[in-house]
Amino acid sequence: MMKSGLSFLVAARQCEIGELEQLSRTSELVGVISRFAHVLQRERGISNMFLGSQGKRFSEQLLQQAAECRQVERDVREHFALLDTDAIRMRNGARLFSRIAVVLHGLDGLDELRRRIAAMALTSHESTDAFSRLIAGLLNVVFEAADSATDPGITRALVAMFNFMQGKEFAGQERAFGVAMFASGYVDAARQHHWQHLIESQQACFQVFADFADPAVRAREQSSQKAAVLAELDRLRRAGNGLGAGGRLDLGLTQFWYDCCTRRIDSMRTVEDALALHLRQLCERKITRAREELRDHQAILETLRRQANVAPADAATRYGPNLERSIPGMLQEQSRRLQAMSDELDTVRSALNERKTIERAKGLLMAHRQLNEQDAYKMLRRTAMNQKRRLIDVAEAVLSMADMLPRHTR
Amino acid sequence: MMKSGLSFLVAARQCEIGELEQLSRTSELVGVISRFAHVLQRERGISNMFLGSQGKRFSEQLLQQAAECRQVERDVREHFALLDTDAIRMRNGARLFSRIAVVLHGLDGLDELRRRIAAMALTSHESTDAFSRLIAGLLNVVFEAADSATDPGITRALVAMFNFMQGKEFAGQERAFGVAMFASGYVDAARQHHWQHLIESQQACFQVFADFADPAVRAREQSSQKAAVLAELDRLRRAGNGLGAGGRLDLGLTQFWYDCCTRRIDSMRTVEDALALHLRQLCERKITRAREELRDHQAILETLRRQANVAPADAATRYGPNLERSIPGMLQEQSRRLQAMSDELDTVRSALNERKTIERAKGLLMAHRQLNEQDAYKMLRRTAMNQKRRLIDVAEAVLSMADMLPRHTR
Repeated sequence: MMKSGLSFLVAARQCEIGELEQLSRTSELVGVISRFAHVLQRERGISNMFLGSQGKRFSEQLLQQAAECRQVERDVREHFALLDTDAIRMRNGARLFSRIAVVLHGLDGLDELRRRIAAMALTSHESTDAFSRLIAGLLNVVFEAADSATDPGITRALVAMFNFMQGKEFAGQERAFGVAMFASGYVDAARQHHWQHLIESQQACFQVFADFADPAVRAREQSSQKAAVLAELDRLRRAGNGLGAGGRLDLGLTQFWYDCCTRRIDSMRTVEDALALHLRQLCERKITRAREELRDHQAILETLRRQANVAPADAATRYGPNLERSIPGMLQEQSRRLQAMSDELDTVRSALNERKTIERAKGLLMAHRQLNEQDAYKMLRRTAMNQKRRLIDVAEAVLSMADMLPRHTR
Repeated sequence: MMKSGLSFLVAARQCEIGELEQLSRTSELVGVISRFAHVLQRERGISNMFLGSQGKRFSEQLLQQAAECRQVERDVREHFALLDTDAIRMRNGARLFSRIAVVLHGLDGLDELRRRIAAMALTSHESTDAFSRLIAGLLNVVFEAADSATDPGITRALVAMFNFMQGKEFAGQERAFGVAMFASGYVDAARQHHWQHLIESQQACFQVFADFADPAVRAREQSSQKAAVLAELDRLRRAGNGLGAGGRLDLGLTQFWYDCCTRRIDSMRTVEDALALHLRQLCERKITRAREELRDHQAILETLRRQANVAPADAATRYGPNLERSIPGMLQEQSRRLQAMSDELDTVRSALNERKTIERAKGLLMAHRQLNEQDAYKMLRRTAMNQKRRLIDVAEAVLSMADMLPRHTR
């Protein structure tokens, strides 16, 4: 039997539901990833403290934290496996799965990293880098999830989630960086610049979060920030930065710094849980509503089919005059809805474009100057610092110069 | 068993192949749609000649053309049905299927349209409008296909195809418009403006085609344009336009005009066939290559699994040192490739943005001024004409004024 316009309208709805269900699975995954990033951030911090104390302290906490990490890692791996890898038509599947492949490869090296930390065969800088790369990989998975979502409301929630996680990660990097600074006892101009960059990057991320998060989640975030912790953080940041180039830091501040940052980051964790819960509920609500609408569509289609069997004449009598009149309205309503969704999606996704531009500039530098990812990023950062420009402006300048760069062929 | 990074790399490849296979089916459909649009364009032209002659001539050709149309229509419907409507995870499925639903609904009214033309119960203007709406619906399907493709090379070919078809449709509209002009025997300033708009719209589309088409197809297009036909077209356009407002046209030119336009449009048809063939071959080549690469990946994965069964130790020994070393390279290569594809895709898709902006402005006018699609477009066109600005500039101005427009709530 030839398919009618209405049956394609039903198929269109089924596609939407399929995408929502996939988004729901991805959103579950994002929630688990945020928990995993959190315990890795803690392990990175404690590893730093351990290495900074020449292995004299924190070995107990380190073992405990590694055990907790392994538990959440199992959870993450299970969620990865749950993603139906046979669902080869998964939207944006190639990108998402490639990001997951990178994460899994990183996880395979995690025990080796821990052995080297325990043996103090790494500097705290190298250890921080290794953990940060792994967390960056996890953030990339969340980014792809946000970038591939087709529902604007869910994309909005994922953009808020990604930016909150990224902001929290900058806070975690600041904690690790500060530990190394306070433990080394001095700070110079380059380190001050880097510190400032970490602070500004956090603020930029939390601003995007505030722009996109659900009001209830935003309120939760605001109430989670304890004034005393923020004041203490501010005091310690000034203690670290206010000394000027070559200044000496008070070594006793290391523990204060770590505890203060940790209190702040732990309270962020509750916001992530609220974000993840909101995301899951949003997906459920949308799926329920879409299924109801699909049932309505199917009921109409069924009526039409029955009428067609009774009186197989021309379109107008076949569908019955009332239903026949309702079809153009349904078609128009559907195309208006999809257009509105697509417009809103474009607006929300533009929040992801800044990061994409930076990624693209990084890729260009990697290809043209034979750099690895970290070094390409550092080159962008250094240029921004030296020229006192924003990172995004430097990235755009790099891209606009692309044609002038020599193309290196391997 | 926990899935490894490599198995997700394989899954990523399978996703890509799944998308390519879907693109291949969509490309087949696009080829059939281009044939259907062509016969509808002819039927529109002949209907116009028939109505213009007060039913005295062309009734034979009209019957023949309608019969040919019905044949291709069956083909199109079969291809629609072939699209696996149960493939609810089809990328961009909701939009594509909604567009198809609109086309199918239009097709259901086609026989009624033909009856009214045969009974001369329509003006040639109304008849042209009805056919043009149907063809616009078909073009929308091609546009969604182009907009949803994830492979930059195939997107490029689809963008070329869409723009060629759209340019050809403007040529068809010019033919119908010219027939009405020459038959009515006069042309005024508003009609001259509209004529000019149809000519410029064709040029803009063929320019995008030229920018994106495969060189071989482009050469085919250039050789298909017969100098004698173009010179004749130019002469007739000047005869129509050169008379100035209120000028009288030579009635005998109607047939010349129709024949000249038809020769040109029929030669365009061969270019569309070349485009469709190129598209199909491109899909096949890409699928073959992707499958080969997938087999390589799977072979490596299989080796790793065998080794894992023999020596289930840590990652380095489990994978064997050589394979273990090759994994980061494979991961990097994959992410570099996906990044490059995504960059290129953004560039190619930007060619579709102009149309999206116009669609969006139209949607805004429809919502705010209670207009239907045709009238919203006419309002944009009239404003552009009166202000001597490009349509896209007017559309952008409308969108930037969006916040100032009163929101009409139904």
